[in-house]
Amino acid sequence: MIETRAIASLETPALLLDPEKLKANVQRMHRRIAALDGVLRPHGKTAKSIDVMNLVSEALGDAGLARSLQSQGITVSTLAEAEYYAAHGYRDIVYAVGIAPNKLARVAALLRQGVKLTVLLDSLAQVQFLMAAGEREQISFGFLVEIDSDGHRAGIAADDPALLLIAEHASESQWVEFRGVLTHAGGSYDCRSVDAIKAMAEQERNAMLHAVAALQKAGFTCEMVSLGSTPTAQYAQSLEGMTEIRAGVYPFHDLVMAGLGVCQVEDIAISVLTSVIGHHSGQLIIDAGWMALSRDRGTAQQAVDQGYGVVCDEQGHVMADVIVSATNQEHGVVRHRHGHDLSAEEYPAGRLLRVLPNHACATAAMFSAYQVIQDHERVQAWPRINGW
Amino acid sequence: MIETRAIASLETPALLLDPEKLKANVQRMHRRIAALDGVLRPHGKTAKSIDVMNLVSEALGDAGLARSLQSQGITVSTLAEAEYYAAHGYRDIVYAVGIAPNKLARVAALLRQGVKLTVLLDSLAQVQFLMAAGEREQISFGFLVEIDSDGHRAGIAADDPALLLIAEHASESQWVEFRGVLTHAGGSYDCRSVDAIKAMAEQERNAMLHAVAALQKAGFTCEMVSLGSTPTAQYAQSLEGMTEIRAGVYPFHDLVMAGLGVCQVEDIAISVLTSVIGHHSGQLIIDAGWMALSRDRGTAQQAVDQGYGVVCDEQGHVMADVIVSATNQEHGVVRHRHGHDLSAEEYPAGRLLRVLPNHACATAAMFSAYQVIQDHERVQAWPRINGW
Repeated sequence: MIETRAIASLETPALLLDPEKLKANVQRMHRRIAALDGVLRPHGKTAKSIDVMNLVSEALGDAGLARSLQSQGITVSTLAEAEYYAAHGYRDIVYAVGIAPNKLARVAALLRQGVKLTVLLDSLAQVQFLMAAGEREQISFGFLVEIDSDGHRAGIAADDPALLLIAEHASESQWVEFRGVLTHAGGSYDCRSVDAIKAMAEQERNAMLHAVAALQKAGFTCEMVSLGSTPTAQYAQSLEGMTEIRAGVYPFHDLVMAGLGVCQVEDIAISVLTSVIGHHSGQLIIDAGWMALSRDRGTAQQAVDQGYGVVCDEQGHVMADVIVSATNQEHGVVRHRHGHDLSAEEYPAGRLLRVLPNHACATAAMFSAYQVIQDHERVQAWPRINGW
Repeated sequence: MIETRAIASLETPALLLDPEKLKANVQRMHRRIAALDGVLRPHGKTAKSIDVMNLVSEALGDAGLARSLQSQGITVSTLAEAEYYAAHGYRDIVYAVGIAPNKLARVAALLRQGVKLTVLLDSLAQVQFLMAAGEREQISFGFLVEIDSDGHRAGIAADDPALLLIAEHASESQWVEFRGVLTHAGGSYDCRSVDAIKAMAEQERNAMLHAVAALQKAGFTCEMVSLGSTPTAQYAQSLEGMTEIRAGVYPFHDLVMAGLGVCQVEDIAISVLTSVIGHHSGQLIIDAGWMALSRDRGTAQQAVDQGYGVVCDEQGHVMADVIVSATNQEHGVVRHRHGHDLSAEEYPAGRLLRVLPNHACATAAMFSAYQVIQDHERVQAWPRINGW
């Protein structure tokens, strides 16, 4: 029997997850990708929970969206995630953060377990330390080269000669295996309209097409051509030539995604349950500070700045003009956007509220468990991992 | 035998702690407070580690600063900290976050173990649910009333009639015990000069003197008169009339404290060890993103904006103009403040760097252990707790 408890009996702050919203978000995204004949490789970095990943798989099955996550592979942001998901049956994993030498012993251990773990790099120097480690560990490291499709962060340009040098260098060694190219259109988070996101998705794909063509001309085949971000996955018009698309936050969504037009505020599947613990100048003090909400201010540059989160009542009904305007370690300050008083009569000490996060990955990272809502009033705890 | 390993063998990111810097910071602060005949009640929320707290105690002993932390009491920000420190011999604990009803069963459990745990409130409503819980649990809850000394966050004004009402109401019940008043000059974090911090320290003390006088006139004695913040503790000119002063971040210090003039950048005792994992437009990509550094941008409003942290070389030598300018979940972008190129020759993939944090509490919270440096080259792991 599964143990549950009443939401009202939880200690605050606590991280709530609404599985019905999650399922709807997952099915919406996977239907879009299926319509483009694409394959989604979900990112495990937001959930960091095998139960959540299994729920995503289940939602796909319910919607007749065919293949299980286990068979189509996942993305991770840490080796802790790779080890955790691998231990639970996920055997095709892309570790989508540039590789460092001190991580190769753990990568090798996963490879020896038969996990198809693919690492990421963008320099000859990295190929070289991979080759040295391969020889030392007597195992071959499969890798992707990161392509910069938007000048946002990492990777090399699609027409950078280093791309061919890396592929050539790798082809001369049995200790490394060039598998293809990967890009992340992180710049899509700064888009100001849906049309801009659509254009970014096409820019992302074009960079990949260019890289693949250059490699092909030099005689190299890409087994994997991987691109993606939740905004570009949501609005991509074509995935032709791509073997997969990655997206992370879409099962949960958050205020940043809502601000981008990628979801509605009502679609956000996680929130932080908190108690009113004080009143000050028409504002409320709650027991969710940055330790619970994170310091993420992802909506600060968007059209609507949501502070540290939008407040809902205990049942989850959104109070759009009530936001968390400031945070200390264990204190949040809640105010009405237009300065209206929030009274102690309406919000007495001890009243429960929920806060929708700016950034689901950052807020979830502050917790070691999800409280998963069952029948609106009860919750079941699902553990999640953190760390590296 | 204590297990240690070479710093160079650590996987990145990792949280380094320099115990020599910590000891010096602790002794400097405690000497100042001792010179004012004050008693420091350190905050356990930054360290969240019994080993670190014991090191603080040891540093006090070494400096002849008499009383142990166990005897002089500590402050905490969560019940998880209270339970953890209590289990390790700390029996006089102030829980300095306004109390919520759903936490009282755990408070009662600690009280039954003989821990002198004092809770915080600032409304009659809170006294009332404390009384109800006291009767239910058959135990008396000792509490302090939070005084607002700077309009910064929580508490009631020193001349608010609610203060006397709370004390009177409490005196009529055996299930609650009024112990005195507490304030936190959080506004000191916004000070722009040492003189402003000195003035804030005196403002904080004056608010407390007013509250105590009003209570005394009405026949109420304050067993505890508690004030503090690291900046005002550092620069208080008098603690007359106060029974204790609280401070949290001073054993570690951070860039926010350095920006306030409370410490030097070289005093900062913690840093995040990271690897270079890429190069992009004269900038470095490192494997310390906001998941390691936190999203805290505490220096953004100070005279010198330090981005997400100041970079040091592997040995900890500060490179003052090299900062982490942007972060994603597991990626940090390092740039020279004046735009100078950071080359792959000087900073090859795999090179180790250290990042000094804006806010020690926030950065430490992203890790489950400190790597404590021994003899400059080796480290020993000390666990720390998180959560509530």
